[in-house]
Amino acid sequence: MRIGLDAMGGDHAPEEIVNGAIEAAPLMDRGDEIHLIGPEDILKQLLDNRKARKIHNIKIVHASECIGMDETPVDALRQKRDSSIAVMAKLAAKGDVDAVISAGNTGACVAACQLRMRNLAGVNRPGIAAVMPTMGNPLTICDVGANVACKPINIYQYAVMASVYSREMFGIERPRVGLLSIGEEDNKGNDITKRTRELLRADSKLNFIGNIEGRDVFRNACDVAICEGFVGNIILKLTEGLVEFLFKALKEEVKKENIYVALKFKNIAKRFYKRYDYHEYGGALLLGVNGTSMICHGSSEARTIKNAILAAERFTNKGINDQIAQWLSDSTLETSDG
Amino acid sequence: MRIGLDAMGGDHAPEEIVNGAIEAAPLMDRGDEIHLIGPEDILKQLLDNRKARKIHNIKIVHASECIGMDETPVDALRQKRDSSIAVMAKLAAKGDVDAVISAGNTGACVAACQLRMRNLAGVNRPGIAAVMPTMGNPLTICDVGANVACKPINIYQYAVMASVYSREMFGIERPRVGLLSIGEEDNKGNDITKRTRELLRADSKLNFIGNIEGRDVFRNACDVAICEGFVGNIILKLTEGLVEFLFKALKEEVKKENIYVALKFKNIAKRFYKRYDYHEYGGALLLGVNGTSMICHGSSEARTIKNAILAAERFTNKGINDQIAQWLSDSTLETSDG
Repeated sequence: MRIGLDAMGGDHAPEEIVNGAIEAAPLMDRGDEIHLIGPEDILKQLLDNRKARKIHNIKIVHASECIGMDETPVDALRQKRDSSIAVMAKLAAKGDVDAVISAGNTGACVAACQLRMRNLAGVNRPGIAAVMPTMGNPLTICDVGANVACKPINIYQYAVMASVYSREMFGIERPRVGLLSIGEEDNKGNDITKRTRELLRADSKLNFIGNIEGRDVFRNACDVAICEGFVGNIILKLTEGLVEFLFKALKEEVKKENIYVALKFKNIAKRFYKRYDYHEYGGALLLGVNGTSMICHGSSEARTIKNAILAAERFTNKGINDQIAQWLSDSTLETSDG
Repeated sequence: MRIGLDAMGGDHAPEEIVNGAIEAAPLMDRGDEIHLIGPEDILKQLLDNRKARKIHNIKIVHASECIGMDETPVDALRQKRDSSIAVMAKLAAKGDVDAVISAGNTGACVAACQLRMRNLAGVNRPGIAAVMPTMGNPLTICDVGANVACKPINIYQYAVMASVYSREMFGIERPRVGLLSIGEEDNKGNDITKRTRELLRADSKLNFIGNIEGRDVFRNACDVAICEGFVGNIILKLTEGLVEFLFKALKEEVKKENIYVALKFKNIAKRFYKRYDYHEYGGALLLGVNGTSMICHGSSEARTIKNAILAAERFTNKGINDQIAQWLSDSTLETSDG
């Protein structure tokens, strides 16, 4: 398997991305390769610095340009045809790599993959599946931003895709699927959730448990939560912001205690972050494209990238895409995007 | 001013509700009254127990029935015409009370107020404004659940209503208004946010700062955040669930330290909750109805109810509704609900 890695994407690129590749390389299956994508001279230099030029399963693919984190995705892709993201997506389209990973401009990465990689058989619209730690099983939430204007069939397909993903990646046999809404009763929600619920009920292979509310997300109420990309994106970013706010506020209170308590709290926070660590999951999967596409957080560090590479390898090896395509082809639901 | 208080609503009703009334009574403006609504015998008994039967500004209004927290709002209102919520809304409609407060079934309370109290002049659809503590100014977020299928004009009116509310209640001179979306750029968002943005820009009285993302909610990026009720409700409940999860997880880590650290952490958590305490705000306002309607959290305690009573008094005295009606009547925007 060949994994195309955008070496120029993310707040700590290219150093941390290259370091992540170096960390992952010896842990990969025999025969698997990392294709580092970016300006050849820079990448050669970085590998040299780490005395890593001779690692047999790291190759360099030249791309002269780089899309910034704040550029408008579509414009950037149009203007920078030799950017690492554009080259990465082209490699995937030609079958020159089996999986792609980027911690760069999310919008550009999603757009490039959707454009180049085509959809998986039976899938109308790809969706991004992010994983959130909870008190119990990790929660897979889909979509968190690929598709802001969902039709019920899209959300149904997110349920199928995320169920296969949750089962194969986390070993949860029949993942409980919850539909994000604003009340548990059937009649609660908006037009989209009401119509989606009928589709979810119609597929008996899904372990659909009904509506869930915002407060259930971290309560281990389900293993898969599905929603429109607009809602999922707000949930993901709100979670990030709220955790940041809480620790900042707690730290201010801790400061009022003595140095011993402050030191102990530092340890406690460290253990908390270690236990509930999104870096562990590497990144979010763009489910529904014909291949493996992983989108990492902009703040990814070397270990995030290492974990992303190993997760992309596992995702591909498990044949998750084939299982999704099979499930959707068995389904009798009308998939016209209407 | 007469405040109608649903004595039977909430997880700790009627005891905590009655206690809240007793705490608030001496703090109210001269001439203001609390009308406790519920079964007369029960309420008399509770006041007797607290030796509070003779408090001159607490009256009892009999209502024989009570709507449970889990009942379906519309059905419950139809079947229980003498429920405390139904009687409360009727009192408001007849002008027998100037403000109403309930910690009971939110759906039933919102439906009853919308049905009975009529809309404020110029308002197409009422919205619930909740207040969240942040590192800086308190953030007013509207709508958090009254209207799940918003039109752009509704969200524009939420911006106007919440701006007046934020200014009058928190003294923020020109509240910064952020539109919840999934990226800061203008072209980010869904169809509703894109169309809403144009309306927000067209009213120069609004201090509209553009899109905000989920991660900005607790970062003091704006003073007023506006969104569809579906999104706002998920944000509110997610916040509640996530804070609960974080403290539970932190407590588990704290337990691994010694008893001294555990005790200190308890103090820290207590100070945190005191500082960022939603009980302080009493409840959420149903903005856009012709009167004052405050919806409290189901878990409201006596001090929550006390604060709600004083907040409802302040809201009414500030003439917020008149200011909203004036602003909307000055506005040249097309308000047909199309």
